[in-house]
Amino acid sequence: MDRRSFLRASALGTTAAATGLAAPAIAQGNITWRMVTTWPRNFPGLGVGAQRLADKITAATDGQLTVQVFSAGEMVPPLQALDAVIDGSAEMSHGAAYYWQNKSVGLSFFTGVPFGMTSREHAAWVRYMGGQELWDEIYDQFGLQGFLSGDTGTQAGGWFKNEITGIADVQGLRFRTPGLGGQVWQRIGASVTNLAAGEIFQALQTGALDAAEFVGPYNDLALGFYQVCKHYYTSSFAEPGLATELVVDKAKYQELPTNIQAIIRDVCQAEYDQVASDFAANDPRALATLVNQHEVITHASFPDDIVEAGANAANEIMQELLASDDDLTRRTAQNWVGALNVLRSKTESADLGYILARQRFVP
Amino acid sequence: MDRRSFLRASALGTTAAATGLAAPAIAQGNITWRMVTTWPRNFPGLGVGAQRLADKITAATDGQLTVQVFSAGEMVPPLQALDAVIDGSAEMSHGAAYYWQNKSVGLSFFTGVPFGMTSREHAAWVRYMGGQELWDEIYDQFGLQGFLSGDTGTQAGGWFKNEITGIADVQGLRFRTPGLGGQVWQRIGASVTNLAAGEIFQALQTGALDAAEFVGPYNDLALGFYQVCKHYYTSSFAEPGLATELVVDKAKYQELPTNIQAIIRDVCQAEYDQVASDFAANDPRALATLVNQHEVITHASFPDDIVEAGANAANEIMQELLASDDDLTRRTAQNWVGALNVLRSKTESADLGYILARQRFVP
Repeated sequence: MDRRSFLRASALGTTAAATGLAAPAIAQGNITWRMVTTWPRNFPGLGVGAQRLADKITAATDGQLTVQVFSAGEMVPPLQALDAVIDGSAEMSHGAAYYWQNKSVGLSFFTGVPFGMTSREHAAWVRYMGGQELWDEIYDQFGLQGFLSGDTGTQAGGWFKNEITGIADVQGLRFRTPGLGGQVWQRIGASVTNLAAGEIFQALQTGALDAAEFVGPYNDLALGFYQVCKHYYTSSFAEPGLATELVVDKAKYQELPTNIQAIIRDVCQAEYDQVASDFAANDPRALATLVNQHEVITHASFPDDIVEAGANAANEIMQELLASDDDLTRRTAQNWVGALNVLRSKTESADLGYILARQRFVP
Repeated sequence: MDRRSFLRASALGTTAAATGLAAPAIAQGNITWRMVTTWPRNFPGLGVGAQRLADKITAATDGQLTVQVFSAGEMVPPLQALDAVIDGSAEMSHGAAYYWQNKSVGLSFFTGVPFGMTSREHAAWVRYMGGQELWDEIYDQFGLQGFLSGDTGTQAGGWFKNEITGIADVQGLRFRTPGLGGQVWQRIGASVTNLAAGEIFQALQTGALDAAEFVGPYNDLALGFYQVCKHYYTSSFAEPGLATELVVDKAKYQELPTNIQAIIRDVCQAEYDQVASDFAANDPRALATLVNQHEVITHASFPDDIVEAGANAANEIMQELLASDDDLTRRTAQNWVGALNVLRSKTESADLGYILARQRFVP
């Protein structure tokens, strides 16, 4: 049902109520919106989160806005989810903004950046330091509106067939890792490719890949990478968090009753916390399973020379974004860098001081 | 308006709609709930958050549930907020669970614990590891239902007239610090008192106090402590986070339409993220003001011997809670300790590894 038929249904509803048919009036006032996602159905954390977000909107609106989920491939292939909203096939998409950086490079900032913001810093930037306003400017060009809808927290560095002892081991390494993080690994010598979730396992098994990163233990356990790789680097410098988004058709959104607009915003924000909590609780449980049942060898971090080279490459990329010809990309980069410098000062004093004190004195 | 008059009003509303008076019908179906808070009106982060939470519920329900806020002292004194819900003077309270540990010691766990959970860990425990269920058992005894509604993130250690160079300086130190954190400081030699927010400044000024901690830079700047103390310890081991709560009258809550129940839950969860984002963005801004405009001397952490003694005292307190005669307190402590051990393993590998790498290689 499109917007116009919703408005007609509402008008019908009012008429029905006035003639005493209250219950049918409510039913006829309901609309159904289609949400396409980039995640497989029931995928831990992310696919489950998209479905839960849809169900929460339906519940909070008492079905006035019923959201029907189409997971990856059910309506369109995962990386056409945003186009499905733009062309009107769907009203909402659930995915990650950096999938659409070919539409606007600035969208990279709204998912995660190598050596960038943690999940807490990211929400603070979007909500209190100008991030949402820049995101709105970018999506406004496409008639869209984005909301944060989840975050994985700090991701793992990835799965490697062989231990990585230094930067020499990165040269020519065939590594599945997407986004700006992938660009960093490319610049320091890896041969980077992107593959959809369902294709990674086989590529590792056949030897087409030497290494792959996806999200973290919770997802990676489900994808079975431990069967073909034993070396697991548990802390990524490329993806300190991956924020997911709900994107809506802006015109249709603005024509919803204002309380339903509010419910969509509030539910998305609730889900940002819910998804992050899910990963915080279930990543360590999954990691314990990987180590105790599947004999995975964990490495707390990559060797220093790799991390340092990665930081230099990430800085190069950021300098290029800060000097971008595209006004919105440049302004987004400038705002983001300024915000990061403020935010990390708390993370690296209050938060880091606390975590180190607990680690040291409460073993 | 109580529940019964709400039900009457709803019935009237239906009648009015059936006779064609749609707009007045909606207005008459609305109810107003009173929210009492423990925070001063407009207090940064917390008082502002309570008001925003109320406004979001009103907006998302289109006024069907209109929430009227009574800040500290406006209906009852701050530490009688929960009793106001129990005795029916209000339907909701916004505060911190550890204020009510005299009703049930287990409530301490739902605000924050010395050397305990960060804000992210706390939400993960409550939502995915049994925390909410235990909290429900505790509040059920009083006919109440609690929801997380905010979190300050890692707090500051506090304001001290003189620099603290070691455990000897703590002996007899007159220090305002409440809750389990206060018990830790008491056990390591301080003379601990609790004072309401508005009384702290004067007590420092007259010399009745040598030191005080409240929340962090965002609140502390507003309270003006920098005028009487120059030494600011910016990372607390006593309060890694302070979670706030919304508590509702459970019977009245359960009689709300299920979609309004859902809206209250979703808005509370959205606010958990919103408040944490507010502190993440505004604590470092306030700290910069304190240092640059008010010549505050910051200390990243307390001396090691104090932190170590604090950890030992916190452990003693936890062992006592784990052996509590009160079944619910003991079970809450056991569940909490188990969850913390799982959760901190991610914080101290993925998160800590990332924060240290960024600090070191992206100066």
